[in-house]
Amino acid sequence: MPAVSRKGLQMPESPIRKLVPFAEIAYKANKTVYHLNIGQPDIKSPTKAMEAVAHHSLEILAYTRSEGSQEYREKIAAYYHKNNIPATANDIIVTTGGSEALLFAMGTIADTGDEIIIPEPFYANYNGFATASGVKIVPVISKIEDNFALPPISEFEKLITPKTKAILICNPGNPTGYLYSKEEIQKLAAIVKKHDLFLVSDEVYREFTYDGSKHYSILEEEGMEEYGIIIDSVSKRYSMCGARIGCLVSKNKMVIKTALKFAQARLSPPTFAQIASEAALDTPQSYFDEVIEEYEDRRNTLVKHLQNIPGVKVGVPKGAFYCIVELPVKNSDAFAQWLLEKFDVDGETIMVAPAAGFYSSPGVGLNQIRIAYVLNKKSLVRAVEILKIALKQYKD
Amino acid sequence: MPAVSRKGLQMPESPIRKLVPFAEIAYKANKTVYHLNIGQPDIKSPTKAMEAVAHHSLEILAYTRSEGSQEYREKIAAYYHKNNIPATANDIIVTTGGSEALLFAMGTIADTGDEIIIPEPFYANYNGFATASGVKIVPVISKIEDNFALPPISEFEKLITPKTKAILICNPGNPTGYLYSKEEIQKLAAIVKKHDLFLVSDEVYREFTYDGSKHYSILEEEGMEEYGIIIDSVSKRYSMCGARIGCLVSKNKMVIKTALKFAQARLSPPTFAQIASEAALDTPQSYFDEVIEEYEDRRNTLVKHLQNIPGVKVGVPKGAFYCIVELPVKNSDAFAQWLLEKFDVDGETIMVAPAAGFYSSPGVGLNQIRIAYVLNKKSLVRAVEILKIALKQYKD
Ligand SMILES: Cc1ncc(COP(=O)(O)O)c(C=O)c1O
Ligand SMILES: Cc1ncc(COP(=O)(O)O)c(C=O)c1O
Repeated sequence: MPAVSRKGLQMPESPIRKLVPFAEIAYKANKTVYHLNIGQPDIKSPTKAMEAVAHHSLEILAYTRSEGSQEYREKIAAYYHKNNIPATANDIIVTTGGSEALLFAMGTIADTGDEIIIPEPFYANYNGFATASGVKIVPVISKIEDNFALPPISEFEKLITPKTKAILICNPGNPTGYLYSKEEIQKLAAIVKKHDLFLVSDEVYREFTYDGSKHYSILEEEGMEEYGIIIDSVSKRYSMCGARIGCLVSKNKMVIKTALKFAQARLSPPTFAQIASEAALDTPQSYFDEVIEEYEDRRNTLVKHLQNIPGVKVGVPKGAFYCIVELPVKNSDAFAQWLLEKFDVDGETIMVAPAAGFYSSPGVGLNQIRIAYVLNKKSLVRAVEILKIALKQYKD
Repeated sequence: MPAVSRKGLQMPESPIRKLVPFAEIAYKANKTVYHLNIGQPDIKSPTKAMEAVAHHSLEILAYTRSEGSQEYREKIAAYYHKNNIPATANDIIVTTGGSEALLFAMGTIADTGDEIIIPEPFYANYNGFATASGVKIVPVISKIEDNFALPPISEFEKLITPKTKAILICNPGNPTGYLYSKEEIQKLAAIVKKHDLFLVSDEVYREFTYDGSKHYSILEEEGMEEYGIIIDSVSKRYSMCGARIGCLVSKNKMVIKTALKFAQARLSPPTFAQIASEAALDTPQSYFDEVIEEYEDRRNTLVKHLQNIPGVKVGVPKGAFYCIVELPVKNSDAFAQWLLEKFDVDGETIMVAPAAGFYSSPGVGLNQIRIAYVLNKKSLVRAVEILKIALKQYKD
């Protein structure tokens, strides 16, 4: 029997997927499961976007241009201008989700064996794209005590080798919820310029910032034209995860030219989803105001209730809709399984994402979980209550 | 300025894309251009599919499962059963086009430096996916004199090394239109079993076979459970290229398990497109009968008129909607540019795909072009007339 590739064997399994069989046990036992584990928002997609698709008048569902339709890219450029990001249609390649933008970015900037430095904990699928691309992720640890702020630049300096091609950040962060300050972005800009590296910034949660704080994009920073690559997506912004539309943005012409070759090989991004995404750009600001108010409210509730549990530490999020929570347990993986398999309060339990999968340093984050606050407040309060009772009962 | 990757530099440009600036010159000069160069069918997508999307009632455009929705995979499995392919829902991973299925297949079976043998001429984007995956394509030449039939198995044997992981075929072929016979598939089955290789079969044109001949899939052949991987797509079958839905099919559990990890990293295939593709499976056989009659008719017309041009040789296609044509010119690349830039008949000209891009052996196919018969008969006849006049005027 022919064997699969080494790369295929090394491809990580999603840290959430591993729990699915345990969730099935919970369902079979008729438990109600509060899902704190996934980044699928419960917010409605903008009506305009959904209606644009319903009103389509296509007779032939044809390929679009590989870089995305001209109209859509021009409208995204206008959106960026409103956000102080000086990108034109030519600086944008529309991708099949932010996921594909990440894959194209890695292929564009790194060869097999090259290294990319990423503050951890980080979005677990960076591991998958890196493995698929033969790229080595070099983690630099950020700490819950600092709410996962940027580690000292000296920590990055120590890790730079001739194989280092880029620093990759997620801003605001999944799973940390941390929002980098302008000063932090400027420090990163300085180090990539000094060492001639790319700075890749995953800004798919750009819109979601709280406490009145503002997102500062790497392309707002002057002099980043040649260094900066933005990863973006409609998935979270418009609660349109199933569209599968994102984009890669750079003012570096060689980066765009190269990423375009990857885009051409796969022909085009999905057509219906581009119709929806283009219409979504007409979403009024009031939609975001409401959504952000809702998330901020949830965050406040979640953090307050979590902080009331003895022995629990929370990385207070300033953006996105995740937070990392440190628990008084040894192994959150075992705890997460136990919650589904063995535990309930009046037939209810919770599903959380063990945080170890968000670290690439072995042995780090074993007592942490990630909570996604994509449930309404009432459910969140109940879920935290369940967590509190569970922690009392649980024995490592 | 940081440099892009070597891999990125090596990524091939599409052989058609290179002509786009010349097409723009033709448009500026107000020429009418008959497009024989692209695989975007002019056939309408099935009404049921387009209406299913128009009638969607989604409020949240959510991720589906990474392997595609259960309902859709079960319906595809039923379609395969009708086609004598014994695949169940668990053997299927829904992908973003056949393109992504090819990328997943390469990642699943090959590491950097591994080799895949492919009869050439072949679909040009295999080069792109191979480069992106670090895989080396080893071509085995098939000949226009044989209508691009399977080269002798001894030719494959000569090329097998310890690094060979698979043989990849396209059946029916783009750009050749060749349909492999049952005997040819059996020969391939024997050689992959003998050498413990995968046999990857790109069957995205399965439906398009002419002269009453029937497609024989690698998974119809007994004993191929562990070796066979099918690449499939709705793009051509239902003229739904813009959907971006395809799939990877294998009875080899380790292949599916591994490909699923690649699928999980990118989260899910597009949701609207899955709705369309699921509905498309209800397309009545009469749709295909009509489409195939139309293509067969076009092929007959095209081949007849081409064969009337002195010095022109045609690889007569038995499937798909392409054919390779050998011209009495030295360099079809220069000829294709000249057609757009310098030539017209009463304001009309044609755009063709130079065939060199479909070969990976250097210097082969320089006097060949690929014609896609995705235009109505009248336009095809006129286009061939234009080609005939052009060949009389053209001087290498
Ligand atoms: C940080 C981050 N980047 C990228 C993505 C990819 O999302 P998509 O491919 O749906 O755009 C996600 C999804 O959860 C994410 O959290
Ligand atoms: C032979 C072959 N395979 C795969 C594809 C990929 O098509 P898609 O990604 O649209 O399914 C094409 C498209 O032209 C093709 O001709």
